[in-house]
Parts: sequence; C-alpha cells; structure tokens
Amino acid sequence: MNLTHPFRDADGDKLHEECGVFGVIGAPGAASIAAAGLHSLQHRGQEAVGITSFDGSEFYSHRGLGHVAQVFSGRELANLPGSMASGHVRYSTTGGSGLRNVQPLFADLASGGFSIAHNGNISNAMTLKRDLVSKGSIFQSTSDTEVIIHLVATSRYPTLLDRFVDALRMVEGAYSLICMTAEGIIACRDPLGIRPLVMGRIGDATVFASETVAFDVIGAEFIRSIEPGELVQVDHKGTISSHRPFGDPSPRPCIFEHVYFSRPDSVMDGRSVYEVRKQIGKELAKESSVSADLVIPVPDSGVPAAIGFAQESGIPFELGIIRSHYVGRTFIQPGEQARNTDVKRKHNANRAIVEGKRIILIDDSIVRGTTSLKIVEMMRDAGAAEVHMRIASPPTEHSCFYGVDTPERSKLLAANMDTEAMARFIKADSLAFVSIDGLYRAVGEPKRNAKCPQFCDACFSGEYPTRLTDFSGRANAERDAA
Amino acid sequence: MNLTHPFRDADGDKLHEECGVFGVIGAPGAASIAAAGLHSLQHRGQEAVGITSFDGSEFYSHRGLGHVAQVFSGRELANLPGSMASGHVRYSTTGGSGLRNVQPLFADLASGGFSIAHNGNISNAMTLKRDLVSKGSIFQSTSDTEVIIHLVATSRYPTLLDRFVDALRMVEGAYSLICMTAEGIIACRDPLGIRPLVMGRIGDATVFASETVAFDVIGAEFIRSIEPGELVQVDHKGTISSHRPFGDPSPRPCIFEHVYFSRPDSVMDGRSVYEVRKQIGKELAKESSVSADLVIPVPDSGVPAAIGFAQESGIPFELGIIRSHYVGRTFIQPGEQARNTDVKRKHNANRAIVEGKRIILIDDSIVRGTTSLKIVEMMRDAGAAEVHMRIASPPTEHSCFYGVDTPERSKLLAANMDTEAMARFIKADSLAFVSIDGLYRAVGEPKRNAKCPQFCDACFSGEYPTRLTDFSGRANAERDAA
Amino acid sequence: MNLTHPFRDADGDKLHEECGVFGVIGAPGAASIAAAGLHSLQHRGQEAVGITSFDGSEFYSHRGLGHVAQVFSGRELANLPGSMASGHVRYSTTGGSGLRNVQPLFADLASGGFSIAHNGNISNAMTLKRDLVSKGSIFQSTSDTEVIIHLVATSRYPTLLDRFVDALRMVEGAYSLICMTAEGIIACRDPLGIRPLVMGRIGDATVFASETVAFDVIGAEFIRSIEPGELVQVDHKGTISSHRPFGDPSPRPCIFEHVYFSRPDSVMDGRSVYEVRKQIGKELAKESSVSADLVIPVPDSGVPAAIGFAQESGIPFELGIIRSHYVGRTFIQPGEQARNTDVKRKHNANRAIVEGKRIILIDDSIVRGTTSLKIVEMMRDAGAAEVHMRIASPPTEHSCFYGVDTPERSKLLAANMDTEAMARFIKADSLAFVSIDGLYRAVGEPKRNAKCPQFCDACFSGEYPTRLTDFSGRANAERDAA
Amino acid sequence: MNLTHPFRDADGDKLHEECGVFGVIGAPGAASIAAAGLHSLQHRGQEAVGITSFDGSEFYSHRGLGHVAQVFSGRELANLPGSMASGHVRYSTTGGSGLRNVQPLFADLASGGFSIAHNGNISNAMTLKRDLVSKGSIFQSTSDTEVIIHLVATSRYPTLLDRFVDALRMVEGAYSLICMTAEGIIACRDPLGIRPLVMGRIGDATVFASETVAFDVIGAEFIRSIEPGELVQVDHKGTISSHRPFGDPSPRPCIFEHVYFSRPDSVMDGRSVYEVRKQIGKELAKESSVSADLVIPVPDSGVPAAIGFAQESGIPFELGIIRSHYVGRTFIQPGEQARNTDVKRKHNANRAIVEGKRIILIDDSIVRGTTSLKIVEMMRDAGAAEVHMRIASPPTEHSCFYGVDTPERSKLLAANMDTEAMARFIKADSLAFVSIDGLYRAVGEPKRNAKCPQFCDACFSGEYPTRLTDFSGRANAERDAA
Repeated sequence: MNLTHPFRDADGDKLHEECGVFGVIGAPGAASIAAAGLHSLQHRGQEAVGITSFDGSEFYSHRGLGHVAQVFSGRELANLPGSMASGHVRYSTTGGSGLRNVQPLFADLASGGFSIAHNGNISNAMTLKRDLVSKGSIFQSTSDTEVIIHLVATSRYPTLLDRFVDALRMVEGAYSLICMTAEGIIACRDPLGIRPLVMGRIGDATVFASETVAFDVIGAEFIRSIEPGELVQVDHKGTISSHRPFGDPSPRPCIFEHVYFSRPDSVMDGRSVYEVRKQIGKELAKESSVSADLVIPVPDSGVPAAIGFAQESGIPFELGIIRSHYVGRTFIQPGEQARNTDVKRKHNANRAIVEGKRIILIDDSIVRGTTSLKIVEMMRDAGAAEVHMRIASPPTEHSCFYGVDTPERSKLLAANMDTEAMARFIKADSLAFVSIDGLYRAVGEPKRNAKCPQFCDACFSGEYPTRLTDFSGRANAERDAA
Repeated sequence: MNLTHPFRDADGDKLHEECGVFGVIGAPGAASIAAAGLHSLQHRGQEAVGITSFDGSEFYSHRGLGHVAQVFSGRELANLPGSMASGHVRYSTTGGSGLRNVQPLFADLASGGFSIAHNGNISNAMTLKRDLVSKGSIFQSTSDTEVIIHLVATSRYPTLLDRFVDALRMVEGAYSLICMTAEGIIACRDPLGIRPLVMGRIGDATVFASETVAFDVIGAEFIRSIEPGELVQVDHKGTISSHRPFGDPSPRPCIFEHVYFSRPDSVMDGRSVYEVRKQIGKELAKESSVSADLVIPVPDSGVPAAIGFAQESGIPFELGIIRSHYVGRTFIQPGEQARNTDVKRKHNANRAIVEGKRIILIDDSIVRGTTSLKIVEMMRDAGAAEVHMRIASPPTEHSCFYGVDTPERSKLLAANMDTEAMARFIKADSLAFVSIDGLYRAVGEPKRNAKCPQFCDACFSGEYPTRLTDFSGRANAERDAA
Repeated sequence: MNLTHPFRDADGDKLHEECGVFGVIGAPGAASIAAAGLHSLQHRGQEAVGITSFDGSEFYSHRGLGHVAQVFSGRELANLPGSMASGHVRYSTTGGSGLRNVQPLFADLASGGFSIAHNGNISNAMTLKRDLVSKGSIFQSTSDTEVIIHLVATSRYPTLLDRFVDALRMVEGAYSLICMTAEGIIACRDPLGIRPLVMGRIGDATVFASETVAFDVIGAEFIRSIEPGELVQVDHKGTISSHRPFGDPSPRPCIFEHVYFSRPDSVMDGRSVYEVRKQIGKELAKESSVSADLVIPVPDSGVPAAIGFAQESGIPFELGIIRSHYVGRTFIQPGEQARNTDVKRKHNANRAIVEGKRIILIDDSIVRGTTSLKIVEMMRDAGAAEVHMRIASPPTEHSCFYGVDTPERSKLLAANMDTEAMARFIKADSLAFVSIDGLYRAVGEPKRNAKCPQFCDACFSGEYPTRLTDFSGRANAERDAA
Repeated sequence: MNLTHPFRDADGDKLHEECGVFGVIGAPGAASIAAAGLHSLQHRGQEAVGITSFDGSEFYSHRGLGHVAQVFSGRELANLPGSMASGHVRYSTTGGSGLRNVQPLFADLASGGFSIAHNGNISNAMTLKRDLVSKGSIFQSTSDTEVIIHLVATSRYPTLLDRFVDALRMVEGAYSLICMTAEGIIACRDPLGIRPLVMGRIGDATVFASETVAFDVIGAEFIRSIEPGELVQVDHKGTISSHRPFGDPSPRPCIFEHVYFSRPDSVMDGRSVYEVRKQIGKELAKESSVSADLVIPVPDSGVPAAIGFAQESGIPFELGIIRSHYVGRTFIQPGEQARNTDVKRKHNANRAIVEGKRIILIDDSIVRGTTSLKIVEMMRDAGAAEVHMRIASPPTEHSCFYGVDTPERSKLLAANMDTEAMARFIKADSLAFVSIDGLYRAVGEPKRNAKCPQFCDACFSGEYPTRLTDFSGRANAERDAA
C-alpha cells in the first residue's frame, strides 16, 4: 500500500495481510457498526484504523494508529454521525507521516465528497502517479490508493460512476474497494477477485466486509460474495444495482486467504476456512505421515490443520506449546545484552507434555525459517525425542504484489533451498509441505488446472495473474525466473 | 487487596486471581528480568504493574496502570538500575486514587528502605489498621498489604527480620510476599501456603515467582517451591537462609490455582497444570459422559479439559467456538441502544462445524451463569442440535477471602440453585460438574480428606482454613451456613 | 486564512494579526534558528506553528497546535535537519481538522518539493478554488494559501519561478510569502506591501521575517525591508537575486501594524514602532487633553502611548491596572453560575493608586467595546473619581480582508454609533480617538494623502486598496457604504 | 520545602517565593473559587498546584505539576465538590517523585481526614523527622510540611486542636498554614508572621489567602491580616474563633515580600506593595542619583521603582527593554552549539530608544549577577552611551531559610564582593543599592530598629529571627559570620 517502500520487511516471520475493509449504509449509528465490524477484522491489519461517516450533509472522519479498540476508545464515535459509514484496518508505515496514509482516504471532488477504502495493491501505481503529478495533481499520501482518487478527479467523463470506472480501467493489480459519495456506497472487486469482499444485510441496512466473520459479530446475515469484476451500488433508499464494467474475466482469488489470513470462522467463496484448514491437515497426514507420539500445533494458526492431521493419523493432539495472550516485547535496558527471550514471551514449551516424546509439529507456512528454527529448538530444549515438522501449505517461493507484506525473494527460505536443506536449517528430524494438488483438493478442487489455475497461487508457483508494471526491474525478473 | 471495597464486582463472569509477584537478586539489569517475568504472569493481574529495584545505595520504583508492556514501554527500565528487583501485577481499583495501591509498596523505615509485593489477602487487615491509626500511623493506600509495613515500622524488636516475623504473627489470611531491604530479598509464604511461590536460579542470581512459567521465560532453572510457612532470605553475596517461624502447620494450597488461575505450562507444587486439567476432563468423562458428536471447549481455559474429555470419551475434539485475540469492547455511540454483541466480540460460533451437531461444551467453572447462558445460546443460534455443558470444577458456592475476586454469594449461581435448575437457567440440555473427589483424584490424591482437606477448597466446600476477622458480619454467616 | 470561516469571531475583544513568517538559508541548524525567530513573532499568532527544513536532499516538517515552546518542546527540532528552514505562526481554527491548515504547507510538485508560508489573506481565493477543483485539483486544507500551490502545480510555464509568478498574477489581496524549493528560498511581498517582510543576515546565512525583532533575538543584522511587489530568491551558495514581476505599484502597507500588531521593539519600514506609539500618545494629548490626576495605560499595548501622553500633558504616568503574566481562564464547575471574573483574571485594578483620582485611560483601539466597558467599571469600582478614555487609533469602523481577524461590521462599536454614544456605552466621562491625520503625523507623514493614501487604513476609512472578489455580497456592500 | 534538597539552585537568577496558599469555607463550588484565587497567586509558585475539597462527608483532591490553568484545564474541578476547599501553588522538585510533594498534603488520622497547605519553611524539620521515623512513622513525601502531620497524628492530646497546637510548639521557622478537617478550616501564621496570610469574606463564606490580590479576583472583601502567632478556626456554620497559643511575640514579617515577591496590586500588612516599591525608587533617587537621559526599568519587577525614581529625579521614564509575554526556552538541536539567546528571548533592547543615551537601569535585586551582566551588555550592544544600575533593595548577602529559594552564599554576588567590584562584574558605569534605612523608610518606618528589627531582613542583615536547627553546619556558620 506504500509507494515508496513497497516491500517493508516484516518484523516477525509471518506474512501479513495488509488490510480489511467494511461498509454499511442505511443504519443509524453506522460508525458504531463499522467499529464492531472492523474489530472482528483486526487480524487483517493491526497498525492503523479509520472510519468515515456521512450524515446526509457532511462527511466525518477519524483515523489513528493502533487497534480499533485504542483508536476508538473515547468519544470518537460520537463525532461520526450518520447512517452510512465505511472503515479500514491496515498495517501502516511507522513515524509521523504515517497518519496521512491511514484509510479511508477522502477528497472533495467537483462532484462532492469521495471516500475510499482499499484492500489489495495496485501494481502500476507508481507509473500512473508520475503521469498525474506532471499534469498538476498534488498527492497527500504515499499510498497507491490515492492514485484512484486523482484518476477519478481528472477524468473527463460526465458522471461520477463513469469517472470511477474510467479510473479503474487504468489500474492493474488487486483491489476490493468500498467507496462513499453523498449518494451512497460503491463496493467493487477487481476482475480477478484476488482479495475477498462479501455483502450482507442487517435489518434494512446493507453491509460489506472483507470476511463473513464481520457479519457474525454485528448480527448481520450473509447474502453473497461480490463477484470478481463486479461493482455494486447502494443508495440511501436501499436500492442495490450491480454492474460488470470489465466483462467476464476468469477469477483468481488468493488461495493463501484459506491457508492463513482469514479467520477460521469465516466462510470464503463458499468454503468454511476452518474445514479447509482441517482438510489440509488430513491431506498432509495422507501425504507425509510419520511414526510419532503426539501431534502439536504451533498456536494459533496451526491448530485446525493439527486437529485434521491428528484425526487422520490417529496420533493424539496435545497442546505442547502454550501461547501467551499478551503482546510480547523485549524488556532490555539500554546497554544490556539481549537475552533470547522473544519467542518464549509469545510461545512457551509445555515441558510436562513434550519431554521424551516423538512429536509432529504443524505450522501454516515457512517464510524466513527463523521462527521454525526457534520452535524446533524450544521443543528439543523441553526434551522432545524427535521433532517432525509438517507445513499446511506448499513452499513459499515468490513475493506477493497484491497486498501481502512478503519479504523479498532472497529472504524466503524456500526460494533458496530444497526441502531437505530446509529441514537441516530448522534442525528438524524431518520436514514436509502439503503438495500444491493436496492444497487444491483441500479447498474442494479435484486438482490444480495448470493452464488456468482456479486461484492466485503466485507465492507458490510464481505465476502472477497480472502485469507487474511498477516492478519490472525486480519482480518481472522473479516472474521470469519462476 | 482493597480494604474499602473488598468485594469488587467482577465486570465479567470469571473469577480473577488478584496478583502475581516476582523477585530477583544478584543479576545486573534485574528490573529487565523482573519485567520479563511479570509479563509471563500477566494472566494473574492485568490492571496495574510495578517494579522496584535497588542498585546498592538507592531504591528506584516505577508503577503504573495497564499491562507490563504498556507501563514499561519506554525508558522506564533504564531508570531502574541495580542487580536486585521485585515486581507485582494486580487487579487495581479504578480511578485516580488507584496508583497509590499499585505494588510494590515502599517505605523509608528507621532501618532503611523496605519494599513489599504481596499475593493473597489478609483477612484481619481492617481490624489491625484501626488499631495502628489510633496510635498515629498514617496510611498511604487502601491496600491490606500496607498493614504489614506499619506493623514492621512500629514493632519494638531489634532486627528487621524479628520485626518482620513479629508483624506476620499478627496477620491472618493468605500471603506470598517478596520484600526487599538494602541487605537483600526476603520471600515468604503464609503458614497454609494458600498462594503459590517458587524459587529458581539463573546463573548466580536467585529468582522468586508466583509460577514456574516465569522461570521458563527468563531461562531460569526451577529449584523448588517455597514451603508453606517458610521464610527465605537471600543477600547480595548469594547466601540463602531458610526460616520457619510459624512451626510446622498443615498446608492448604488453593485448589482453584490448578483448575483455572495458573498457566497450563506451569508446574504447581510438583504437578503439571496442563496434565491436571486434562485429567479433570477425563474424570468428568467417566463421571458424566453423554452421547454426542463433538467435544467443544470454551476457549481458552476449557481446552485442556476438553482434550482430556475427548480422549477419554472418544468423541472428536473440534474448535466450535473461535476466540478473538483482540481485546473486545462495546462500540456504542451515546444514546444508541446497545446491541448484544459483547460476547460475540470475544467468542464467535464456528457455524460450519456446529450446525446440526450434538455437542458437549467444556468450561472451567460457572460463576454467575450469564456467560454460560450466552455461549449456549450462541451454539443454538449456530444450529447445534443438542448442547450438553460439562464443568471442570465442582459448583462454586462460596466467596473467596484469600485474594480471588469473587462476587458475593447471592450472585453465585451455584449458591442459589441445584444443578438441574442451573441447567435450565443456562438453557443446556444437560449440565454436570466434576465431583469434589474427582477433582482431588485429578490432582493426584486418592480422595479428599474430609477431616483435614489437603487443599483450600472453601469456594466449593465453604470450609475456610482461617478466621475471617474482618468479615464476621457477612462471611462468618456464610461460613456457618456452609 | 480560512476559506470556510473567513470571519471567525474573536474570542476576546482585540483584533488579531493572523500570522508571522520566518525563513533562513545557509545556516546549519536552520530549524533551531527558525524556532527562535518564530518565538519572537509569537504575538502575531499563538494557536499553531510549523517549521519545514531541507537538508540538501529531503524536506522535513513538524507542525502543531499551540505555542512555539509547546510544539517544539522535545526532540522535534532534532528531526528537522538541514541548513534551510522556514516557519509560520498562526491563529488556527479549532478542532481536529485544524492541523491540516497549519503552515508551512508542502506539496510534491513535478518540479520537486515546494513549501509555502503565508502572512496575509487572498481575497479571491474561493473563486480560484472553485475553478481549480472543477479541473481535477484536490485540496488538502481549507486555507486560502493552498490556492497558490495548485496554481503553481497546474501552470504550464516551464520554470518553477515562471509558474510561481504566473500563480501570483492570478491572486488578489495581501501576501508576504516565504517559499522553499530544493534550489533555495523565494521571499516575496504583494504589490501593495500590505503585510511586512524584512531581510537580514547572520554570518553567511540570509534570513527573512515578518518583523525585525526576530533578527534581534537570533543575533542577526537587519539589511532592509522586502519592497512591495518584490520577489527575492536566495540559493544555497548565498546568491541573492531580486525580481519585480508586478512593475512599480504604489505601496499601501497596513497602518495598524504600527498601532497595535507589531512588537514595540520592531522597526517597520524605517520607523520605530515604540516611537510611533509614543508619538500617537503625544498627538492624542495635543488633540484631546483633559484635566486629570493620572495617566493610566491599559496594559500592555497601551503603555507606549500612555508614556507619550504623560510626557506631552505633564500628568503623571502610573500603573493603575496590573496585568497577570499567566494565561487566564474561567474556573467554573459545570452547573455553577459564572462569576464575572474573567477580565479581573487578566487585569486587576491597583486600588491604592486609583482611589479618589481623576484618571485618563489609554488604550490602543476599541473593537466591540465590551473590554473597554469592563475596564472603566473596574476603575470606578476601585474608586476612581473620573474616568476619561483616550484611544491611540481612529475609530475602527470597517472589517479587514487582508489577514486581520476582525469581527463583522455589525459588531464593531464604531460602525454603529458616534463617539459620544460610545462614551456612554463604555460608561466613560469622556472618550476621544486620535484623528486620522494625527495618526499619519505620528508615523511621520505631514498628513494623509486623500487621493492616494500612503497606507492601507481601510479599517478606519473603508477605502480598500484591492478588489474583494470573494466578498462581493457583504464586503463590497461595506466598501460602498463607506 | 524540600528536606533532601533544601537549597535547590534557581535555574534563573531570580529569587523564588516558594508557595502561595488559599482557603474557602461556606461557598458552594468552593474548588472553583480556590482555583481562581490560586491563579492570581501563581507568581508565588509556578511548578505545581493542588486543591482539596470537602463536601460534608468525603475529601477530594487533585494535584499536578504545572500552572493552575494547566492542571485544572478539564473536568478536574467537577470532581472536587463541596463548599470547603483549600489549595496551594509551589515550586516543586523536578522528576517523577515530585507529585507526592505537591500540596495540600492529606492524611486519614484517627480523628478523621486532615489536609494541610503550607507557605514557609520549617527549619528543624529534618531533626523532627529523624525522631518520628525512629518511632514508626512512615513518611510519604520529602516535604518539611509532612512533619506537622505526623506530629499531630502521634500527639497524645485529646482534641484535634490541642494536638495541632502541640505539634506547632515543636516546629521552628516560618509557616502560614491552611488546614482542613471535617469540622472546618484552621488558618494560622507562625509567631513571627514571616510569611503573609490574610482573611476575607465573600457573601457568607470566609476566605484565606497569601495576598489580597486573590480577594480582588474572586470579588471578596478584605477583612484583616491573620496576626503573627494567631490561629483562626472557621466551622461550617461560619462561626469564627481566634486563638493565640504562642503568647504575644514580636512580629518579624519578611521585608522581601514588599521588594519583590508580592503582586504590586496587593496590600501587605496595611501597605500598598506598588506604593512601597515606588517609594523605594524615590529613596534610591535621593540616595544615589546620577546625571542621565533616561530611566529604564528591567521589566516587569523593576517598573514601579523606576516610575518612582523618574518622578523623584525628573529623568524621563522609557521602555528601553521589551519583555516577551511568552515563556522562553532554548531551541537548540542536540550537537549544536548554543547561541547566547536565552536572555534575549525574554528581554530585548528597544534599540531606537536606547541608542546614544545615558541610561539608568532599575532592577529589584541582584542575586548571582549573571542576569544583570547580560542586561547591561544588551544595553551597550544597543548603543547606550552610559549604563548606571540602581537596585531597589540592599545587597543580598545571606540565604533565606524561611521558604525562599536562595542559592547558597558562595553564589550570592553581594556575599563575595563589595559594590564597586560588583559594578565592574556587571560592567556598569556605576552601581548603587538602596540603603537598609532607605528601605525601612519606604515601608513607612522611621528607621530600622537595630535591637529588634521590625521585619525579617536576614537576607540583607544575616540576623535570623529563629534557631536554624537543621542547618547548624552551614547556616549557623553563615549566621555567625554575619
């Protein structure tokens, strides 16, 4: 989402989804509903949050760095009146300039107020920005999303909807958008449907969100997914109209949403995320079981796959690693030597369970490998006799350019060594990943369609479904190398 | 811990342990070690934290409201130099006056600086305070702990240790204490050993903590529990001396530490907390199984017992309830009607798993019953065919006067109705609690010794092991009624 | 400065200058110099302050609400490196949206970074903004100053300087500007020179400021005023070039800068502000003396004129009113009735001096008349026998559209009644204003040139020196009514 | 006021009064009245403020670091209900521990709540504290005032009033106290009356304050000064009773209150502070006039004496130095060299007035001499032909032990050199101080009574009116050397 630092290093060793979006129209106290919805999407972006509302005459906005419960801890919602609101959670850049990148972005256009909340990443944003600036556009943020606003502002088409579609035709990449004008909400999903977007109903109000869990929390009813390439307009009377300005492209939703990003209690394009993850665990048990005493998840993301693995293999499921509920940090005085306690603050071995046992560890993915190494060592320190690691996704060999905060390829363990070398690196007695076809089976496909894959699996396959205009130097090299 | 409001209403429906303590002597950067240790004890007290250190000539202190990671988020640790430190996490009273009750408390006595951190509750504190004030003592806080300091300050014995023992002989109730003077640390546990206290070693340093998990996190080695009635002194050279000023009483450690308060990865008086909880689940399955499709824990505290129940009964263990990692709150604008979303913010049904199934829910205890009711309703809303509730502790019928934040008896569901009525109240198809003997078996005893119980189980049995001087009006009535 | 609320009600009864500007190029630690300079210009704007610096490759900025000493109280200056900096103090709008209007404003243009700090007011800003928005420009602030940036951004001229002059040709009103690009500083003053702007030197560095007092404070040498209509460029080598893109117009600097806004220790267009004010007092004594015991200034702005009045009349000068150094406010609990103590918190009668005396009060101007009324009543309460008010400016009958925060005409006492009625309104025994020719004599002119006044004195005369495009409905009516 | 650092270095070169006190009983919204009163006493203590109120059943308190308007900027007053309140402004120690020293101090005694606000300094506090601690008293603060509370708490007399008098008999030094119990207010002044304390009335309410200006601001009527050695009790019915527990000692009020500390619009023991200061200027002109063009005050404290000097000498009074209204500070980036701009930020030469003139500068006192040196140099830099310094007090040769923050003797310029050497040090063409008899004449005495001086003038004479028990090592040496 950040034009100047498109590849921020993850501070941990997990991939981060960059954003979650939410919108509601037709409900008094819309901003409160948006806050509750965004709170349930917090796992999609924990560093910044914003909500914009409209009360029939004015737009109101509050944005801040932190969790939803921190940024909206006081009287902020009371200052966001109206029956239409949209919001956004994100990973933000650090530092003082960060706030201007927090969404929803807002602009006073000639047609009136216009707000936008975006999940995804536009892969030709820098190229479009250079052209807009040369013609006199002044950017407020370093966010790729702002490109869309300036394209709308400078479009010569007569209506706002025409200008909006005109703008979207120029952009490449991934976008699930929730926009607001004085007339109502416009929600749309890019032609490939890379990021999710769902529609629901609560009373007479229409709601949109990145995941169905947001509907559960507010008591809304799930209606359907927004289709890839679909644009849905809802006005203040509740009239809903659907448009398909991009024709009828083949969808390629992100398969990693199922593996890791989404909440297990969400239903994504018709599939229970929890069931898919359990099924991945079962596929993994079929493909690469091993003789052992216990199946132990790396909490919390590895738990559903571990339950599946345990059920399929008959090996008992146990909590051999306890996760702290409290945010960890290093408590080191300046000048002191750091003790290696950061992993332990988050995860701690349950020594009484692990000691003397042959264990199978289940995790969702391996990025740099540093966390896996520490977990394996923690198990051995706690007395594990054998440690076998099983991973609920194929090897992550390629960067994502569609809104996931991936380290560059050189730092991806799987881009640099084969599985056997990876096992040695993390000091496991054995290591196995689920196969790409096993993964496709777990999501309900008979197998991966090699000519036209049913999902975007570029992080595993290197097959990017769009041009990567801004990243030609590096990413196209990656793409070609794939 | 609060003299004026000894029975603060829990805002939720869970019992709260009131405090955790930590101490270290002989390690440069002692305050950092204390912070890391307290962070792992955060589950024992989340509202306030303090650390006091000593650098050979001066005492330093920082205390604040919030989590360890919030209160020590900046340069605070750099201002706490020295190789001896102790700290405390607690549930504090709300409001501006709260800070003065945050521990460690500190006083400049005639013998020099004296700090104290206390886990437990003194059941004759108000009586002692009245007497001290009448003689000219001025109290800074409303904490029961301050009574001990004034008793030490006004004792006529010659040495600090004598004055300290003199003071403790006057107090009744539960106390695990970590005190510091310029000479070193004094750690002690009340004669009944109601609250836990363990000793460990890291390099040449000696460490004390409420639970062993604090040692895991800082890389310390567990040595042993402080015995009930034992007082351990450690000086700056590392010399350790043990005293037993109270003779040889029969210990009565709190059994609820095993059921709920302690971390599952702690070892308490020689028993793995996780294994005890799994074993309670197995006892429960033996005592009151039922025909069902799934065993579902109420996360997170119900998970170990649910695994045990599933293993014993053969019924599959599944995550039918998903817990959010993010602190929940109500996002309601002033004037709006609250939607009933607060339980959902923390727990959400995994509908895809639950729908159409007969389920057994496993939780650790029932206090007021309101949470259980909401969880059962959530399961039915998600389509559960039958909901059977099994509880990993006996009915909670009595208040605790030893440092657990229990609602008054009239609000305890089990004090007001029998199991059948409770089942109707929470709308479950059936309800069962583990028996008191089942619980004792789970912790490794053949059965409860009725004459002299091995544990303090007053919340279940009403048999309080000490006088309740301050609470004669109410509590003794409860005791007699028991 | 605020497009949506051009006539903010003053909360007090004094006119407010809206802004002060400062710039420096060629000095390491430029931001620190700017902070010291702005601190001495604090009287020109107390609600918000910003500084932008450039270190040879990047621009840095910090802006905030409050005084210079508050906004730059910590490490902020350390984050503003480089040898070029400019800054701005202002009266800002209140509320959360205020920050985006705090200057210097900054934009990334196709030619690179561009910052602007503005003292004055553009009287056709709203008209220009409407046109720019219709062509696709997106405004970040509600400040009139931003219009200049968008005019520069969308100008089709080849060089930045050409685009800047092209933009200024389109704007009407008052502007003293300090702009920065990567190449250096551009300082310029509107063709009428309504607001002041001076140039100085400190070592090899060139400095610009609204008033000379800023040079005293940083130890810089005053070189000269920027001429009305002059544009001065200074590059990083110290090369200074002067441009006169607007030909040779007749200057009309604001005469009220001498009466009230500027610091008495500043020298404005060659005249000592203190000497001018003393001289006004002398003219006032010549024109309208009265038999009395004491001359008493309304502190602090009335002091120089009172000294002049006392010297000319021979009546003793005494401090009959004491001013508190501390910012006053009303300390009223919700629900209480306000006691009328607000004037007393700032000014208090020196009863021992005033009691039984006939006094002449000297103040700089009368705006609404409410403060004068309270001061006269305070003198009478303290026992004054007679109270004669003498004002060191002509009656303020018209609003200012050039950067002074005037209440609308209907609230100006002098626009609604003659001097005799005003005397009755403020309950004075007599009231007199200096004559317009007396004022011109005090600033060194033989008399006011009626055809082409030497100063902008529109607030007294109603003769506005420019078109008032945005204000045609109201202000032109005022202008015509004059 | 601070036991551990009784001689804090002044950060500037002015003496600081340490405290101001205020009390009110019988007025609804008492805390608001106290806040307004304390605001007008802000010059007596700018670093910390506190207010305690009583609503008939409970005491409430809010204390903070900063000005009254900062500490009570929000809802604080709304949380201080009741018709009785007292407050305190002070110079506090810096750092985190400072807050516990902010007054009013409060304690729950056996007799009920007891609050105390203290202006002055107890010169045997450390000696008393050592004794109290040895008997078991625990101190919360490092303030000398807390000694009084513990003396009251441990006194064996039956009534609170007896215990209070018993406590005061043990303390030496200066104290003007405002205490509150549930029964009402007790105001008292030490037997010498070193610090001021006045009583007034507003409606049916009784008010107490350090200076009469506090009554002007709240609209109260001045009744009389509390006599030295008098103790006044007021209950909730408005009954006032006066006690004289210390017999009838000779008063010795601080003469420096007239020279510098008090507000010019206060009336102190029957004398107008402004008139006294003007009279000092006249005495000075009689004693040591000099041929010159202008009389220039060092603002603001030198202004009344300069007016008196000008009236007596016939030399014109002019503002040759302009003082900024804004708090000054050094704006220096880390690593930069400090420019010598700190005096200039507060004071700036009015060059147009000073240039080429022979000037007489009038200031209130010389402490270290560093400020005087800078002011003289500033005048010379501005072109003054001659600079003659005249000081409106005798040379300050001794430290104060009664509540004024004086540097130690070795840093007092007048303790180390004669007037001629001081003139050279500050680079003045001549220097003169008012004589001690001239000062006594200015306050209305015929001359100083050498045997029994009418005032405490120890800072000039070294004749301390009490024992200095705590300071025997140093201060008694000073006293003997005097």
